[in-house]
Amino acid sequence: MTTAPPERGHHGPLRWINGTMPEVDERALKVPVVGFIEYCLRGIGQVVFMNSPITGAFILLATWLQEPWLGFGATVGVVASTLAALALGFDRDAIHAGLYGFNGVLVGLGLALFLSPEWDGIVILWIILLSAVSSILMAALAAAFGGAWGVPPFTLAFNITTLLFLITALHITRGRLGEAIAPAAPQVNGPGVRTSLRESADAVGNTDVVAVINAIFRGIGQLFFCNSLLAGVLIIVGIAFCSRIAAVFALVGSAVGMLTGMALGADGVLIYNGLWGFNSFDAALAIAGVFYVLTWRSAILGVLCAIFTALLFGAIGSIFVPWGLPALTLPFCFGTLTFVLLKDSSKLFEWVPPAKVVTPEEHLRRSHQEHAMAASGNPQRQRDTA
Amino acid sequence: MTTAPPERGHHGPLRWINGTMPEVDERALKVPVVGFIEYCLRGIGQVVFMNSPITGAFILLATWLQEPWLGFGATVGVVASTLAALALGFDRDAIHAGLYGFNGVLVGLGLALFLSPEWDGIVILWIILLSAVSSILMAALAAAFGGAWGVPPFTLAFNITTLLFLITALHITRGRLGEAIAPAAPQVNGPGVRTSLRESADAVGNTDVVAVINAIFRGIGQLFFCNSLLAGVLIIVGIAFCSRIAAVFALVGSAVGMLTGMALGADGVLIYNGLWGFNSFDAALAIAGVFYVLTWRSAILGVLCAIFTALLFGAIGSIFVPWGLPALTLPFCFGTLTFVLLKDSSKLFEWVPPAKVVTPEEHLRRSHQEHAMAASGNPQRQRDTA
Amino acid sequence: MTTAPPERGHHGPLRWINGTMPEVDERALKVPVVGFIEYCLRGIGQVVFMNSPITGAFILLATWLQEPWLGFGATVGVVASTLAALALGFDRDAIHAGLYGFNGVLVGLGLALFLSPEWDGIVILWIILLSAVSSILMAALAAAFGGAWGVPPFTLAFNITTLLFLITALHITRGRLGEAIAPAAPQVNGPGVRTSLRESADAVGNTDVVAVINAIFRGIGQLFFCNSLLAGVLIIVGIAFCSRIAAVFALVGSAVGMLTGMALGADGVLIYNGLWGFNSFDAALAIAGVFYVLTWRSAILGVLCAIFTALLFGAIGSIFVPWGLPALTLPFCFGTLTFVLLKDSSKLFEWVPPAKVVTPEEHLRRSHQEHAMAASGNPQRQRDTA
Repeated sequence: MTTAPPERGHHGPLRWINGTMPEVDERALKVPVVGFIEYCLRGIGQVVFMNSPITGAFILLATWLQEPWLGFGATVGVVASTLAALALGFDRDAIHAGLYGFNGVLVGLGLALFLSPEWDGIVILWIILLSAVSSILMAALAAAFGGAWGVPPFTLAFNITTLLFLITALHITRGRLGEAIAPAAPQVNGPGVRTSLRESADAVGNTDVVAVINAIFRGIGQLFFCNSLLAGVLIIVGIAFCSRIAAVFALVGSAVGMLTGMALGADGVLIYNGLWGFNSFDAALAIAGVFYVLTWRSAILGVLCAIFTALLFGAIGSIFVPWGLPALTLPFCFGTLTFVLLKDSSKLFEWVPPAKVVTPEEHLRRSHQEHAMAASGNPQRQRDTA
Repeated sequence: MTTAPPERGHHGPLRWINGTMPEVDERALKVPVVGFIEYCLRGIGQVVFMNSPITGAFILLATWLQEPWLGFGATVGVVASTLAALALGFDRDAIHAGLYGFNGVLVGLGLALFLSPEWDGIVILWIILLSAVSSILMAALAAAFGGAWGVPPFTLAFNITTLLFLITALHITRGRLGEAIAPAAPQVNGPGVRTSLRESADAVGNTDVVAVINAIFRGIGQLFFCNSLLAGVLIIVGIAFCSRIAAVFALVGSAVGMLTGMALGADGVLIYNGLWGFNSFDAALAIAGVFYVLTWRSAILGVLCAIFTALLFGAIGSIFVPWGLPALTLPFCFGTLTFVLLKDSSKLFEWVPPAKVVTPEEHLRRSHQEHAMAASGNPQRQRDTA
Repeated sequence: MTTAPPERGHHGPLRWINGTMPEVDERALKVPVVGFIEYCLRGIGQVVFMNSPITGAFILLATWLQEPWLGFGATVGVVASTLAALALGFDRDAIHAGLYGFNGVLVGLGLALFLSPEWDGIVILWIILLSAVSSILMAALAAAFGGAWGVPPFTLAFNITTLLFLITALHITRGRLGEAIAPAAPQVNGPGVRTSLRESADAVGNTDVVAVINAIFRGIGQLFFCNSLLAGVLIIVGIAFCSRIAAVFALVGSAVGMLTGMALGADGVLIYNGLWGFNSFDAALAIAGVFYVLTWRSAILGVLCAIFTALLFGAIGSIFVPWGLPALTLPFCFGTLTFVLLKDSSKLFEWVPPAKVVTPEEHLRRSHQEHAMAASGNPQRQRDTA
């Protein structure tokens, strides 16, 4: 979710696949269709704050391997939302950085999962329409959040669009709601919580190493509605191409989410399937390196944000029970929003404004450079970059 | 919802009844009671963004003809909210433009419809008290929205006041709740959706021309809680006195809302009675001409906003099921808010700041004038009006 | 909730116990542990806008006398939230003024009341963790509200933290929910409203003087979850040390809340036990004297705000029925927020910016001074303090 143009600075052959890949961007944008594909892929990568077409390609691959219908939904979603932004004349640089793709790809995936049947014409129509709507909402929210607070709206546009449609679908005949949406009355310990980690409510399973590894990697995959080890691994590899720091904190965040769920005594079936991890991993990654320069302090802040986000996951899931709605990535949005709003409250953390976000590695390099300059008595330059 | 003083510029006898009627305003404000009546009527017109006492008079007439009790509620509401604003020392220009009347008239109408019995002393007391409260909320929200984002809060004050009272009334003995407020558990296809257009759940009826005309005009009337063809026609005539463009987009918006409901497969009884139209019509009118200068692009944007608003109507209705609350004009507020927040995101649309809103016709005239001046090489003047 | 450092200006021995006690602050801060205790007590006082350790000490005493477990929760909460703010490097002046203590003390009290059993290790752990979380949220909300609107977020951090945890606790095994949290379906006149004031649903009782006195003082105590006459008296005495004006408006506000509840026909058991009073009293106190200089106009505004807040109490309680949640101080937050947002809407009221808040008495003194200076023809000075 950066609006910064990819920056030069890398050298050697690795620069073609590492970081935000500005050289690729420059060349791709000259060829119409290639350019479009490139920034659609960047849009997919932006869900995890990676402005890299390689990250996007790995994630897209994971969704297609998980289930072609999911991959199709993702593809249609990112294309429709990006086209809508182009048609409405939104800022080209933002579109090229993938900022009008990351909500769309999630809308496509979410509707592909929650509506049914698969490959249905009306469902596909909903994906196209609502992905486009997500771009309108993204522009409005970006203006509102950026103007008043200088922070991005994260994936709020996806959440609002998808949740409002799912709830509308309860009362219309063409809603195509799948069985996962099941309204119920809230009650204390309602669904009969089972606290040992297991794949499904009926299966045996316990808190062993295999279950924990599943929970962590499925937690990565679940951000893209992919409930499998393989998807999690592919996504981590994709992230690592752009940033190794981000990949590490993705895993840390997913683990923290899982541990928070276990500490709370949440349902082990949900934990095993990564549902306590996907919000926390994106939150940890955002705070520890992307929006705050990585230090041991901001690493701790990222872990705290992952815990807070996991608590929000529990809360939002409970709030939505009467309508049977999923929490989607609302916990991530509110959790990360809370922690980025701390930017001016403490001098312990070095804030990276949204317009200057690149990769955690690049932020570290810049920060070191600035401190070195400040130490060598060049306050002028320091002031310029502040 | 304009804060701009009515502007001179019209000539000939038509200027006494066309547009925002500044000459009438000037004379009326000199006579105490006449002035008060004049800006109460402007307040009624401001619900549909028409700063014209004639529009207001037509709307008020429609409510009295619909049912004297409704008309009485509307009258008490607009008077109480305007008096409250005067007593609290709020901005006189805003009061004279009707900005402290449009929420009150809706509070009066809404409570007259949802509380019972009619002509009850306590219900009348509630109307007076809550209309006054809506003015306080309007001032607070206008400060919050204007300060942070430069957009108006639309009818949010009415919605918040009325919804909070209706929900409070569930648990008190003097709430005087009518039977229309009926809490229920959300469920998939809960109320047994019937998709052919018809007047009532028991009646026969189908999607023929008469049903469509009913849906469109009742959609106009329902903004003022008047479920009749006649009310819709009177309101359109009233709008047309102030702006022909607005009258056209009111009808377009109501039709788009109806069509969206039909495309979704919503309940035909609700569609026939205009419930899918009233939010969309006000949204279309606001976007296509009032807050964006009318072009074919902003006309399309208005249609998109009407569709988006209709989707929100479906969603908000579903969200409110557990408490049995009506959606009121919340869909209009959120839908229009989303689209006015696009003001800085795209160069395809020409934004009219709230303080400069007059009528769609006048916006067109000003825009042509500016472009003509810019073309004739007078950048100085152009900069001044920017 | 003031960020202003305590100000000198009082003379004579009373200055050691009156107002915000700057001399005590100066000396206490020099001794590490004493300083910490001092600003923890100020934090407790800040719940009622009193930046005074004596007010805090009286309130803390009331909670311990009410029930040691409540007092323990309050103490742990204020200590944990203040320590968290120190650890995260938040603004020292704000911490010293108690701004990172008032949410924590309420979190501690709320969880001590709503979780069970008492003196349970896990419940204590929740209090520590969530009090700390409330400080993070406070910093984020203060930045968001202060930046966009120049108003404080009041006790929103406490409300959000506590409500989200209580709702999460519905679906986890380690939530330790007490019996007071009971989800139910909303219905018209659901709980069988009894409108005569009485202590409990089974007891006899009527609207006599004793019942009214109970309702008013229990309304004071209930802000700190203390349902007793004694607690109310102690808290009023504590407030009076810092400000007599505030003490009077606390009682007025609690009475107005009670009367609003009675006028609505709300359940007399709730009214007797002060539940209609505690939000209104804090709201009245905030508006009449703290955020607006006390005049007969702002006194009326404070009463209006107390009525509005009581209406919000009724509404929020009803909204939360499906999850069985308490309204906490959300009504106070939203009610007071609405009225402080009027600061630029009317010239009838003299606004005191959050950074300049001290005590109602001091605001009056400053205002008189300024007017005297303005009258004596010293516009320069007047402009400086504007």
